[in-house]
Amino acid sequence: MAKQEDFFKNVISHAKEYGYIFASSEIYDGLSAVYDYGQNGAELKKNIKDYWWKSMVQLHQNIVGLDAAILMHPTTWKASGHVDAFNDPLIDNKDSKKRYRADVLVEDYAEKINQKAQKEIAKARKRFGDKFDEEEFVSTNPRVIRYKKEEKEILERLAKSLTDENLADVKALIEELEIACPETGSKNWTDVKQFNLMFGTKLGASADSATDLYLRPETAQGIFVNFSNVQKTGRMKIPFGIAQIGKAFRNEIVARQFIFRQREFEQMEMQFFVRPGEELKWFEHWKETRQNWHASLGLGEENYRFHDHEKMAHYANAATDIEFNFPFGFKELEGIHSRTDFDLKAHEEHSGKKLRFYDPELKENYVPYVIETSIGLDRMFLAVFSASLKEEELEGGTTRTVLKLPAVLAPTKAAVLPLVKKDGLPELAHEIIEELKWDFRVQYDEKDAIGRRYRRQDAAGTPLCITVDHDSLEDKKVTVRYRDTMDQKRVDITELKTLIEQEIDFKTWMKK
Amino acid sequence: MAKQEDFFKNVISHAKEYGYIFASSEIYDGLSAVYDYGQNGAELKKNIKDYWWKSMVQLHQNIVGLDAAILMHPTTWKASGHVDAFNDPLIDNKDSKKRYRADVLVEDYAEKINQKAQKEIAKARKRFGDKFDEEEFVSTNPRVIRYKKEEKEILERLAKSLTDENLADVKALIEELEIACPETGSKNWTDVKQFNLMFGTKLGASADSATDLYLRPETAQGIFVNFSNVQKTGRMKIPFGIAQIGKAFRNEIVARQFIFRQREFEQMEMQFFVRPGEELKWFEHWKETRQNWHASLGLGEENYRFHDHEKMAHYANAATDIEFNFPFGFKELEGIHSRTDFDLKAHEEHSGKKLRFYDPELKENYVPYVIETSIGLDRMFLAVFSASLKEEELEGGTTRTVLKLPAVLAPTKAAVLPLVKKDGLPELAHEIIEELKWDFRVQYDEKDAIGRRYRRQDAAGTPLCITVDHDSLEDKKVTVRYRDTMDQKRVDITELKTLIEQEIDFKTWMKK
Repeated sequence: MAKQEDFFKNVISHAKEYGYIFASSEIYDGLSAVYDYGQNGAELKKNIKDYWWKSMVQLHQNIVGLDAAILMHPTTWKASGHVDAFNDPLIDNKDSKKRYRADVLVEDYAEKINQKAQKEIAKARKRFGDKFDEEEFVSTNPRVIRYKKEEKEILERLAKSLTDENLADVKALIEELEIACPETGSKNWTDVKQFNLMFGTKLGASADSATDLYLRPETAQGIFVNFSNVQKTGRMKIPFGIAQIGKAFRNEIVARQFIFRQREFEQMEMQFFVRPGEELKWFEHWKETRQNWHASLGLGEENYRFHDHEKMAHYANAATDIEFNFPFGFKELEGIHSRTDFDLKAHEEHSGKKLRFYDPELKENYVPYVIETSIGLDRMFLAVFSASLKEEELEGGTTRTVLKLPAVLAPTKAAVLPLVKKDGLPELAHEIIEELKWDFRVQYDEKDAIGRRYRRQDAAGTPLCITVDHDSLEDKKVTVRYRDTMDQKRVDITELKTLIEQEIDFKTWMKK
Repeated sequence: MAKQEDFFKNVISHAKEYGYIFASSEIYDGLSAVYDYGQNGAELKKNIKDYWWKSMVQLHQNIVGLDAAILMHPTTWKASGHVDAFNDPLIDNKDSKKRYRADVLVEDYAEKINQKAQKEIAKARKRFGDKFDEEEFVSTNPRVIRYKKEEKEILERLAKSLTDENLADVKALIEELEIACPETGSKNWTDVKQFNLMFGTKLGASADSATDLYLRPETAQGIFVNFSNVQKTGRMKIPFGIAQIGKAFRNEIVARQFIFRQREFEQMEMQFFVRPGEELKWFEHWKETRQNWHASLGLGEENYRFHDHEKMAHYANAATDIEFNFPFGFKELEGIHSRTDFDLKAHEEHSGKKLRFYDPELKENYVPYVIETSIGLDRMFLAVFSASLKEEELEGGTTRTVLKLPAVLAPTKAAVLPLVKKDGLPELAHEIIEELKWDFRVQYDEKDAIGRRYRRQDAAGTPLCITVDHDSLEDKKVTVRYRDTMDQKRVDITELKTLIEQEIDFKTWMKK
């Protein structure tokens, strides 16, 4: 656990040190749960977007893009259910006036009981050493059994109360467990109330005439309200998909875990419209397709876990989470949902417009069913970044920090390094850059010894270093060094473009 | 005038019909001054972004990207001056309870006087026919002279009152001119008040503890607050630039002209940090560089106008607008501003943090000066789209509608069309698509006669059509048809990739 926490801290500090992620408005001490992407982060994020967009839109004749606005007509959110049911249960402490998420208070309490069990396990491991059998210990030690049971009961009761929307019981649970305000110790609580997570704003000039708007809490509805526009003007035939990348906003009360849960975040979503009755076939198809997409990036199969939901949201009839092994454990990275005709029907009802497809084969009008693939762009960024960050031991006992980003996603494809700052080597390095820059983001670096420059590029995630030395002036060859293997080879300057192209070729990556 | 208005209507309806732009939440009758980009619009917008990003970030070793959040610490907007001075002057009618922009009421009144002058001119033109000399008529006809004088006096007095922030005089002007409420005719007005254009929202759960936030009204401040983070972690040396593309929001009271002035819009900005005293040299450099960028796209030199400001914003010491000939006349498309050290200094004062650069050559610490290039992405979209939309007369008296988008920006690079829907032609067309799709967005279309398909692709802006006929099965050649010239040539299927690559090669376009 300690190691995991340390690693997470390393991820955060490395992300800042190498210009990937900064706290938002950091000079004003930051804005909680909002982050800015720095010079390398902006490129990595853009490359993830492009990789997704190409794989979804460019490769599929029956998928098209969309770029809908963040501000939408407020009835959209009435129809989608967000006005009535997009809530967190909150509780106030009457003495401290502090506000908390009631479910998180209970979860934190349960986690403390789990910690007690973990302590017992750690103690026993220390005592028994190599002979320790954790599974056996957990199933026989009476104290651990009691802790585990208690934790389980609390979490199950909480889940039931939330599902039943029985907020009085959530409060009762807090009182029974004698949970105190974490800041003051007071146990004097108000009732639990629902708090809507949408950010509100007002359109228009005066309080009387202004329209209440929301910042969209998800991008999906932008696709649904445009269903007919796209289908008709794009002459789309079912099955077809609409893909979109864009920002969404949630006024999270407890926002933790770096860029994993932000108040402002970005989604990459595709809604695939199918014939009613064929949705489960397509659900399986998209599960597999999305799995292959993740596999193509080579972040390690062991870092993925697939979780089929047994309990579904009200609009879904099948759902899978693709979970990733983040620095704080396995958590949802992408969701694949069979959303039925819930959204389109809801918009039909609220708008009075027909959102149907005339199926020329069936000679029938229907509201299509929908399969959604929805991935958090910031989460994907964190997955790529944290899975790529390695501390490697080298021959001779030294270590290096290396960010083994997939080359297709790396912010800088190659660094061009003159061995020394004189004798015409910088000039030749710049000539090489002038040739390459039209096709790739390349970087020039002449400062410090060559070994240090290699380490710097390793840590920044640059897959290739191109070193210009005195021989280069004669033989027009340079040394290409590979970040991951540290192998070096001598290459004609004229071959560099093809060499880099091969490293980042989209087709090659996608077919991995 | 009538022709211009007709053309503007054509632009709007063509943009909808071909999946470029839809009104936001159209099924709910739209959200005023907010638009969604459809399946072709999303691609054109993305291609404009990429063309700008490559030209700014990829081509320049000393420019890096950034992707800052829309939500920022509220003190940012205190420091930038937006909290105190980002206002529109509004006036209410006491009888109708309607609210207006006071300056727009006066401008509309002045415009009516101008219309009277235009009517006189039109009448005279009709009377004198070919012999009519407009310049002479305007300078001698007493009625036209009076109208022009009256219009000029009103606009000058309005400009002076606004500059002096003398809102009482704006009201006095409205009363003197006896301007009435356009909806009811009432002349019973309140005082003129300033209204802040930033959209507000609240972060956090309760009214007591919530933080007032704003949706950023410009992207520039995200760059300034990150100046030190980027400079230090990116080891940047002055002069250097930070580029960013992102959304901004303004609660415009009067939002008109399609996507030209939206409440939610997107900017492409670059802030270039230089030594104090060298800013005017760099200002000239960026004026020229940005002019060349626009020229590279070939939208027509005659459609651009450069307007050097004599009156500057409080933070600027030089400013130029690049104006474009939109369907409603010449309007600002891009601004190039020498912003001095105003912003960085303001953030130093409000944050207490140093935002300086240690110049190793001068051996001196200073707050850099800033040259900004700021272009509206939606405006650039409208410029490209409207300049590309042509109605052409063909031989034989027919006409065609063609969207002559620069190929590098076109949503679909090529359409692959089997001459008939049988005999194995569709299969060969799909084989060609399977080869090309890894590198380009290509489209399959088999419906309707080939001529009709050509017209459809012309109107959608696709630069190339690739037609598969019966001979293709034998000789492995296809007919390539060029959208702009309608020329056709026979090409080996294996050469298609290179042919398309040449049409959209970034270096070739940028060097135009």
